[in-house]
Amino acid sequence: MRWLEVDTRNCSVQAALDIVGQKWSLLIVRELFNGVHRFDEIQQHIGISEAVLARRLRELRDADLVESREYREPGSRTRREYRLTASGLDLFPVVIALLNWGDKHRAPNAGGSWQVRHRECGEQVAAVVTCPAHPATPLDHRHTVTNAGPDAIAITPGHGSEAD
Amino acid sequence: MRWLEVDTRNCSVQAALDIVGQKWSLLIVRELFNGVHRFDEIQQHIGISEAVLARRLRELRDADLVESREYREPGSRTRREYRLTASGLDLFPVVIALLNWGDKHRAPNAGGSWQVRHRECGEQVAAVVTCPAHPATPLDHRHTVTNAGPDAIAITPGHGSEAD
Repeated sequence: MRWLEVDTRNCSVQAALDIVGQKWSLLIVRELFNGVHRFDEIQQHIGISEAVLARRLRELRDADLVESREYREPGSRTRREYRLTASGLDLFPVVIALLNWGDKHRAPNAGGSWQVRHRECGEQVAAVVTCPAHPATPLDHRHTVTNAGPDAIAITPGHGSEAD
Repeated sequence: MRWLEVDTRNCSVQAALDIVGQKWSLLIVRELFNGVHRFDEIQQHIGISEAVLARRLRELRDADLVESREYREPGSRTRREYRLTASGLDLFPVVIALLNWGDKHRAPNAGGSWQVRHRECGEQVAAVVTCPAHPATPLDHRHTVTNAGPDAIAITPGHGSEAD
């Protein structure tokens, strides 16, 4: 099948962007990954209105990316804190891929303002595209083919490769 | 430094989203990765207005993610086609990470409507987070630490690890 014949309503990239492509959604996810879980702290750090943050959090919760629970500190009223669900945590490669790209192509200061490192060895992590048969080989678009691409090469899975 | 003390205007994720977080931008990038380069074909396949597509393409061009060139087929007027630049092609891990996430969490039909496979072996590719010292070890958020996280663990780069 040619890519132009694919009904894009069934595209997983599009389905993902329907929720995480909303303005501010991935910045909220970034805050949660970085350990900021309280409404007012997220709001102040991102710099968005309460109304927009409340709406986005509701959407992320409805889509099962975020869950909330109530907590109360002594002498304060009950508040909510927000955590990524398993589905939200699976956005880690998306966030790291954006961080890497921004560091390389958009960083105001070289290297960007924050780094994510492997806890064990201290090296900076990167989101790389690999296949399960060649986990240590980073692939770019030239090494891949889609089943709906313009050349739509028929692939026989598992025929192996000595080339890499 | 705690994450809340980081000025998010210097965040590379935010800088990346300033351009690719615009509605439709990553869907245009998806079309270009899939070999669709002509304005009218992109427009019809995504299903957006000419005006919006023209604006997004201009923004992507101004940001050096897309370049265009003129071409003319016999008997037709001169048209433009659009290609990803090196900087645009570096978005490959972002697109694959979104595709993987959508396949897993949002696919209308199991597995989604298109797959990207390693040209050499036919296995489906995935965007995984790794570090250069452990290229074959997929990492999740629990394996990483940021220099601006809530616990802000001091990392001495290169102290090595036998743990993984």
